[in-house]
Amino acid sequence: MADKVNLDERFQRFSEHWSPKIVAEVNDYDIKVVKVRGEFVWHQHDETDEFFLVTAGRLRIRLRDQDDIVLEAGELFVVPRGVPHCPVADEETRVLLLEPRETVNTGDADVAGTVGVRLD
Amino acid sequence: MADKVNLDERFQRFSEHWSPKIVAEVNDYDIKVVKVRGEFVWHQHDETDEFFLVTAGRLRIRLRDQDDIVLEAGELFVVPRGVPHCPVADEETRVLLLEPRETVNTGDADVAGTVGVRLD
Repeated sequence: MADKVNLDERFQRFSEHWSPKIVAEVNDYDIKVVKVRGEFVWHQHDETDEFFLVTAGRLRIRLRDQDDIVLEAGELFVVPRGVPHCPVADEETRVLLLEPRETVNTGDADVAGTVGVRLD
Repeated sequence: MADKVNLDERFQRFSEHWSPKIVAEVNDYDIKVVKVRGEFVWHQHDETDEFFLVTAGRLRIRLRDQDDIVLEAGELFVVPRGVPHCPVADEETRVLLLEPRETVNTGDADVAGTVGVRLD
């Protein structure tokens, strides 16, 4: 059985941005942590909703034709499948993600993406 | 599209213990919040892993034949499917849960359980 996961401890073990780390598994889903800063790419996930929970900082999720969603620490949002979005963070921000295994962070965008590596 | 969810705001809207509230949906999973205090029942979920993230307080997860898992705020743990466990909290504790839709909180235990109600 896996040990418990302390989120602060996991976040302290890496510094790169937009590079999700898998910290736990729930059935066929991965729980990931990611540090973000700056602007990501516009993309969408046609096959899955995408869950964001901010644990520190502030994440702005840009959406087409409607107001941005701004998440502070302790706030979560689910981007429905098929909805184009672009995450942006003015300061370094810590985010917990929940995604089906093998979900690539850049979705349909024509840029290299990653499913994240396991951070044991 | 659903709005963002502020966890503190959601937790302030109810007071009962061991009564999960659904605050978001990700594909066929529910994100739930629950306040707990005291001892729950021993149970297991044969069909699903169970995810716990403590956001305030302290949750002790009793397991058979091994040390308890003690979760402080910012710590998470996944109880694998089929593993008997009994959650206990000495003080009121706030927990975020992730479960497949229709998961009953008491699992296989011979007591009434709930899948939780939607807290909009």
